[in-house]
Amino acid sequence: MKSKKIYTPIGFKAGGTHCGIKKRKKDLALIYSTGPAICAGTFTLNKFAAAPVKLTKKIISKGTIQAIIANSGNANALTGNGGKNNALKMIETTANVLKISKTKVAVASTGVIGKQLPIKKITIGIKSLAQKITPDSFKNAAEAILTTDTAPKYLSKQIKIGTRKVTITAIAKGSGMIYPNMATMLCFIATDLNISRKLLEMTLKNSVNSSFNCISVDACTSTNDTVLIMANGMAGNPTINKSGKNLNKFQKELNNITKELAKMIVKDGEGATKLIQIDITGARTKNEAKTIGFSIANYGLLKCAFYGNSLSLGRIVAAIGSSNVNVKPDNIDIYLENNLAIRKGVINSHFSLKMAKIILRKQNINLKVKLNHGTKQATVWGSDLSPEYVKINM
Amino acid sequence: MKSKKIYTPIGFKAGGTHCGIKKRKKDLALIYSTGPAICAGTFTLNKFAAAPVKLTKKIISKGTIQAIIANSGNANALTGNGGKNNALKMIETTANVLKISKTKVAVASTGVIGKQLPIKKITIGIKSLAQKITPDSFKNAAEAILTTDTAPKYLSKQIKIGTRKVTITAIAKGSGMIYPNMATMLCFIATDLNISRKLLEMTLKNSVNSSFNCISVDACTSTNDTVLIMANGMAGNPTINKSGKNLNKFQKELNNITKELAKMIVKDGEGATKLIQIDITGARTKNEAKTIGFSIANYGLLKCAFYGNSLSLGRIVAAIGSSNVNVKPDNIDIYLENNLAIRKGVINSHFSLKMAKIILRKQNINLKVKLNHGTKQATVWGSDLSPEYVKINM
Repeated sequence: MKSKKIYTPIGFKAGGTHCGIKKRKKDLALIYSTGPAICAGTFTLNKFAAAPVKLTKKIISKGTIQAIIANSGNANALTGNGGKNNALKMIETTANVLKISKTKVAVASTGVIGKQLPIKKITIGIKSLAQKITPDSFKNAAEAILTTDTAPKYLSKQIKIGTRKVTITAIAKGSGMIYPNMATMLCFIATDLNISRKLLEMTLKNSVNSSFNCISVDACTSTNDTVLIMANGMAGNPTINKSGKNLNKFQKELNNITKELAKMIVKDGEGATKLIQIDITGARTKNEAKTIGFSIANYGLLKCAFYGNSLSLGRIVAAIGSSNVNVKPDNIDIYLENNLAIRKGVINSHFSLKMAKIILRKQNINLKVKLNHGTKQATVWGSDLSPEYVKINM
Repeated sequence: MKSKKIYTPIGFKAGGTHCGIKKRKKDLALIYSTGPAICAGTFTLNKFAAAPVKLTKKIISKGTIQAIIANSGNANALTGNGGKNNALKMIETTANVLKISKTKVAVASTGVIGKQLPIKKITIGIKSLAQKITPDSFKNAAEAILTTDTAPKYLSKQIKIGTRKVTITAIAKGSGMIYPNMATMLCFIATDLNISRKLLEMTLKNSVNSSFNCISVDACTSTNDTVLIMANGMAGNPTINKSGKNLNKFQKELNNITKELAKMIVKDGEGATKLIQIDITGARTKNEAKTIGFSIANYGLLKCAFYGNSLSLGRIVAAIGSSNVNVKPDNIDIYLENNLAIRKGVINSHFSLKMAKIILRKQNINLKVKLNHGTKQATVWGSDLSPEYVKINM
């Protein structure tokens, strides 16, 4: 959320503009690589996936793209054939104005569901935007994909791969309808890394699974969620095409970036005042740990309690017990930060409620749940639930 | 919620009193049959089931009981061995004072989780309450099991079985933590019907599946939910021990009673201002229909929209698509009352938003979703989400 330096990966340009979907704010973003970029993506699992999601899935399946065109203010979802044609029109216009093949343009939309795009305004907007993209304008692109977000979300890192400096720059949005697979979120990542497509896909999948797929604001999954990564190879490092030190380095940095962006999304969740990090350990599988983490993160009564700075150990326990995971209540330890609150399923009589009150007033709260029946773990991030959330969405 | 006549099933007495768990309001209820009653029950599936739930499960497994003792204000959950002993003490005291076997007393608790019961107060309360129970005091019992409810919930019906008049009288509570299996709810049903245990179990299970297991206020399941039915046979009808007209008549009336009570619970949900009935038809299975119904009922963004009298067809569709049911978006029709809003997955251009506004201002709203890929159906009831919900639970 703080203004941070954005490095530009070699060969990339970006920009954002206002074309008239929203009243005043930027609503159209473009990211462009001067050469073809290996690409990978992950998408919403919602059965009512929007037109741009369906098209972009097909486009990235060919392996390389050169541009991403995205609008905010309108999701182009629930729009039937008209919506499909409008998404195709966005692709075509972008391809024409950038003089690239229309098979090399990905498209994404976010915003209101059930309205046709104002495609004339968007067409004019794309033509004008294509003239304005520069290597230094990723922040503008980040602003142009926001909806109810209160701040742009971006992160940029540089790592050394062999002798070459590699840049990874990502922008994201998301504020309501935040729940995996995926959240109502967009994330576009540009890097000049030289990497095989297979490994790019794998690293992205790994990263998303422990970042964007581990957050929840309101347990609502959306029709439009899209994460795309473009890698144009222009950093000039020898192609990463097998596991080893270089792949690990990239994976680690990509994990950091997606995790930080995911946390920014939850922190900026609609009406959210707190980021709740829930660490689940001692599970049979990573999935089991995630399931319990989300049971806690999505438990409305608990989210209200967090908002009110009150600790409800009973609600935490009820949340754990309400998932379909076969837990053993008598095994479970629960910590608020490093303070043991529940020991083997019973409240710890030495746990200080006074100290709990102090911790709960913080903006970042950490809960640890030790299931003590396995060796796997997961971390999930959630937010509190405030009256403001209702007001934003009513 | 309205004050209705309560009939007394022959041989039953009930009552409610204040024993000091709560500050002022009634907090202890007793239902007693002068003779042994066939019994059946359904219980929370929460892994952290409270001590009274575990004990009562065992007790009713023997087939007959004579009394139910229940307290509000404290759930006796997350209380370890102390909690178990206190629940046993409630059973013992009740058995002693009523001069019945302690294997014939069921126990239930609802309220705050994680605190030991003030068992001395409760013991004194039970002794005093046992002197006060009368055939006409079911309403007092209904008041004594309330927590954040704003009104007592009870319903009483009479049916003819052969030449005999049979009475069914039920009391219930539940307001927050409302989601099946089960809600944070208690329901005790007393009847003088003469019926076999096997069929009593079956009819209760059927009823609960299409009533209490079809409601959601906040998608939170609790540690204490219990539905118990007692049938003491004193109406004197020939034992119902096979399917046929008499069984159907009882099943139908029991369905009506549990469904009405379930709807009262949702209507009185914490902060709820509206009852949303969601009819799902054309599903492959009843379970599939329920799953989609709950996806809609629990979709926070939609609940906020209902609170704000605004219709968000996009959110309804996103909710349907976010369940794990394999729906075909292009098949789906959605109606607000009898007005077609979405036809085959696309917004109906003739749908009047003006008329929708009028419908959404009502306290009872009906959504119909036709999946059009099967023949099964289910109805689910949910509520809106108001800032008040947060304030009650923070």
